[in-house]
Amino acid sequence: MASPVMPSSGALSPLGLDAVRLAPGFWGDRTALNRDVVIAHCREWMEREGWIGNFRGERPRRGREFSDSEIYKLLEAMAWADHPDLPELAAVVARAQESDGYLSTRWSQARYTDLEWGHELYCYGHLIQAGVARLRTHGEDELTGVVRRAADHVCDHFMDSTRTCGHPVVEMALVELYRATGVERYLEMARRFVERRGLPALGEISFGRAYFQDDMPVRQAQVFRGHAVRALYLASGAVDVAVETGDAELLKAVETQWERTVARRTHLTGGMGSRHTDESFGEDFELPPDRAYSETCASIASVMLSHRLLLATGDARYADLAERTLYNVIATSPALDGRSFFYANPLQVRVPAEPSEGVNHAAEGGLRSPWFDVSCCPNNIARTLASLPAYLASADGDGVRVHHHASGEIRHDGLTLRLETGYPWSGRVTAHVVEGRAARISLRVPSWAAGATLSHGGTSRPVEPGYATAEGDWRPGDRIDLDLPMQPRWTFPDRRVDAVRGCAAVERGPLVYCAESAGDEPPLARIAVDPAPPAEHHTDGAVELDVTARLTPAAEDTWPYRPDRPDLSDEDGERVTLRLVPYHRWGNRGPATMRVWLPLA
Amino acid sequence: MASPVMPSSGALSPLGLDAVRLAPGFWGDRTALNRDVVIAHCREWMEREGWIGNFRGERPRRGREFSDSEIYKLLEAMAWADHPDLPELAAVVARAQESDGYLSTRWSQARYTDLEWGHELYCYGHLIQAGVARLRTHGEDELTGVVRRAADHVCDHFMDSTRTCGHPVVEMALVELYRATGVERYLEMARRFVERRGLPALGEISFGRAYFQDDMPVRQAQVFRGHAVRALYLASGAVDVAVETGDAELLKAVETQWERTVARRTHLTGGMGSRHTDESFGEDFELPPDRAYSETCASIASVMLSHRLLLATGDARYADLAERTLYNVIATSPALDGRSFFYANPLQVRVPAEPSEGVNHAAEGGLRSPWFDVSCCPNNIARTLASLPAYLASADGDGVRVHHHASGEIRHDGLTLRLETGYPWSGRVTAHVVEGRAARISLRVPSWAAGATLSHGGTSRPVEPGYATAEGDWRPGDRIDLDLPMQPRWTFPDRRVDAVRGCAAVERGPLVYCAESAGDEPPLARIAVDPAPPAEHHTDGAVELDVTARLTPAAEDTWPYRPDRPDLSDEDGERVTLRLVPYHRWGNRGPATMRVWLPLA
Repeated sequence: MASPVMPSSGALSPLGLDAVRLAPGFWGDRTALNRDVVIAHCREWMEREGWIGNFRGERPRRGREFSDSEIYKLLEAMAWADHPDLPELAAVVARAQESDGYLSTRWSQARYTDLEWGHELYCYGHLIQAGVARLRTHGEDELTGVVRRAADHVCDHFMDSTRTCGHPVVEMALVELYRATGVERYLEMARRFVERRGLPALGEISFGRAYFQDDMPVRQAQVFRGHAVRALYLASGAVDVAVETGDAELLKAVETQWERTVARRTHLTGGMGSRHTDESFGEDFELPPDRAYSETCASIASVMLSHRLLLATGDARYADLAERTLYNVIATSPALDGRSFFYANPLQVRVPAEPSEGVNHAAEGGLRSPWFDVSCCPNNIARTLASLPAYLASADGDGVRVHHHASGEIRHDGLTLRLETGYPWSGRVTAHVVEGRAARISLRVPSWAAGATLSHGGTSRPVEPGYATAEGDWRPGDRIDLDLPMQPRWTFPDRRVDAVRGCAAVERGPLVYCAESAGDEPPLARIAVDPAPPAEHHTDGAVELDVTARLTPAAEDTWPYRPDRPDLSDEDGERVTLRLVPYHRWGNRGPATMRVWLPLA
Repeated sequence: MASPVMPSSGALSPLGLDAVRLAPGFWGDRTALNRDVVIAHCREWMEREGWIGNFRGERPRRGREFSDSEIYKLLEAMAWADHPDLPELAAVVARAQESDGYLSTRWSQARYTDLEWGHELYCYGHLIQAGVARLRTHGEDELTGVVRRAADHVCDHFMDSTRTCGHPVVEMALVELYRATGVERYLEMARRFVERRGLPALGEISFGRAYFQDDMPVRQAQVFRGHAVRALYLASGAVDVAVETGDAELLKAVETQWERTVARRTHLTGGMGSRHTDESFGEDFELPPDRAYSETCASIASVMLSHRLLLATGDARYADLAERTLYNVIATSPALDGRSFFYANPLQVRVPAEPSEGVNHAAEGGLRSPWFDVSCCPNNIARTLASLPAYLASADGDGVRVHHHASGEIRHDGLTLRLETGYPWSGRVTAHVVEGRAARISLRVPSWAAGATLSHGGTSRPVEPGYATAEGDWRPGDRIDLDLPMQPRWTFPDRRVDAVRGCAAVERGPLVYCAESAGDEPPLARIAVDPAPPAEHHTDGAVELDVTARLTPAAEDTWPYRPDRPDLSDEDGERVTLRLVPYHRWGNRGPATMRVWLPLA
């Protein structure tokens, strides 16, 4: 079985990539695009930028100190996708490994001299994840040999150390390698890396220790903090360690941190991270739409974490956040043609961005870029989409639970379901039984879907958010229909989310919508909306929405703080129709302004 | 005459430090604190951190690449304050100058190899400003010799180059040195530095050329952009060049940029700069209160610019912005004891900061720090307060214009006025004629002071914002009384200032107020206010204000985006009295939360 997360215990068990197959549709189209376009795009850019050449010994070395990890993320994507180029690229990597297992194109002459910023263990983490993917999809080969030698080297060097890496990821990678190989020292090494963090295990840096979660032990923290990707990778590793060692306290600690982070440090899209300066969470309720960092990689890390917590607990709230994040950040990053990407995913853009064809230095988020100086996001998208089917459904004892609705097929132990749906555009999900037996079949009812109904065997009943379960002795030809209410809905922020006070957003199904204004016409700074029911437009491949807005008078350019309250009377403002598009589709038609949160009239 | 800005023409002429003397009061107390405490504080820290030792050849060199400039800013402060330690510190600096005038403790072995980031010309700029101050307050000495050799070296090296410095300031310094010495090549060098910017004159950097204003020529720009201190120093230099060369187009260009910046890129406090990442302005209306960078040095640069435009045009709007910035940013930075400083001046702090005694790495703005890794702000405060009297009043032909009200004395050409006022706490300003003649005396009526009255010679009349002018043949014993209405007022943001939508702030006179909550009790995230007239409390040394607020119910920690509109009904929320303090006084009583913008109920 091949799945990126394979815990040995938990409420739910993973289904492998071989057991979940996607048909054309929202996610099926994206995984096909990933296989056909994104993987090759990433490889081409890394050849062009010299990051692959570094492994061939080409000098001067090019790219950032962690560029090796990008090749490893791509190798992981290739492994999940069973891509024919993997052996050749793995051979290039193998050439650079030293006799004791050490492998870095950057630090070979200064091993482990800068654990705070060097990213050596971070790179091993991604290398190991690639190896785990290869082991599970193919079996032992040159790449897995490299990975085993590297993991053994890490254990030899760090098992009795007090130190760790400034950027977590090696923790979860080592647990998965233990799961894939049965070698217990990998688990013990991961456990020690998790436990020594915050004792502290690293030196002082100008951002402060919270940046890399070395300010306190993992099990003492109350909330995710510091660099968002680091925090979420570390939490994922902590869950993996907790599950494999039966450490209920550690698991509970991460659950508590997740809860508070979701309540106080998460954007409507599911995006995490508010500060550009250190790519960090920021304080509770510091959630600016315009400067939302909401890094693509943080959303990937968030889904990795929520999926782990879902498998461990079976609690639907983890699937709710994962769904939100998948549709509104992960699906947003790649352009519809798969050749450019958002690094940051802000919820408001005031000025149309200037197009540029080359490598993007700044990750501002006004337009997608083909590549970045720090290009974690495209490769991370590639490995995530390549393994996506494994996130969509789980085994629930001998039954099946579907977390994320998509057309395709699920097979589990003599039960085969063909899923048919227009989700997220339509709310009907049908599970056709192709191969049957007695089993419990559960379909997730998202938290927003009050009023859903489940129909099978000629009866229909209302179902609550969570999982709608149908039990029966299923026969080929049987079907289960889940109907989720898809009317657009207005959403308002808690009073504590200062940056979007007095605004509302529109959601429909799992999708967050936004106003996108090419050339800023109409000018989105002058829009004020009344939260009346939006009108739907079923366009080619998407549902767009119209809301009624007022175009407030153009203000003079004077001191913008005045004694008069800027309320609108009922007469003020020209009425205009404002077209809203799914947030994940914005920015595919050239430079535009955009806003998710719409000021109320 | 000694004044930091001495244009050869313009609507108004400067009065020197010898002509404007401050008595005890708001600014008199602060300039005394500066002379007695701040200057010594800065010197001690720069000895401790080794930045002065760098000039003595102590190795390894310590501090950032631009740390030399900090000693020069302090030398400027010492020159304006006629401080007895100046010659000794100047001698330390002189020792490090090379025979051709070159002077840098950092770049001596790699001169001008990194103009983008090296700050060599920036350091010369501050050195020259120190020399100009010394020339005007004292005359030639060892320091001014160092400065002339350095300025000549700059002209020799850069006159026919196409290059400039990543950080402006040398432009205005060279114009002042021309004004102080009459050496015309200094003006020509300044002119060329201004004109070659944006052609471009510098290499690519990852922040983009707008960061250091090399994206377009100065006279083509529409707004200040990029790094705020850089932008405002450059604009100041451009005004100086425009005035001395009679370049009306260049002057007009800067005025237009100032207008748009004030209308769209300025915080209520007058603070400028919204982004931490590159200390930059950000986009129009990107004005987050919590992440307002509003660097102290940017506010100093803003006052330098507005004062130059005021002298050139006589337009009171420049004095209005300068006043706002002086009282609400410059006065905010130093603690009441003069031993710690804000670097950033945010308008909202959600979590009480952790006190720390040492050098602050991050410039977050939750508490003042005694020193910083980049410690421009304390020295910049020192030189500004040391020369502050020169900003308060100008000669207006043979009359006098008072821009900023403070107790003290102004002498100009046979006219001596003793000014008496409790401003900014009270609105009465009295000018007593001590030595008289026929003259026009103008007192500024701030833009917020509708309803002001001017009384003299037994009559009283309403006066409009701008300047209230009294003409007469003044005799000792005559007096003029200006009465400014000081009732607290609610201020509302333009609809385009997204980050503070649905909020209001309280101002009184020139002061912006804030809620400061020690230990966050009451919790400022739960406050909602009704904009009724605040009650005044005249405390020791300040006026505080009480407003009625509602303490909204504590919300649950759940997903913070919901289908219900978070409006309050008239019954909701416990009524509490919320004490507001002048923003410039906040943070003097230990860790606290703070907000200027108060959510409306």
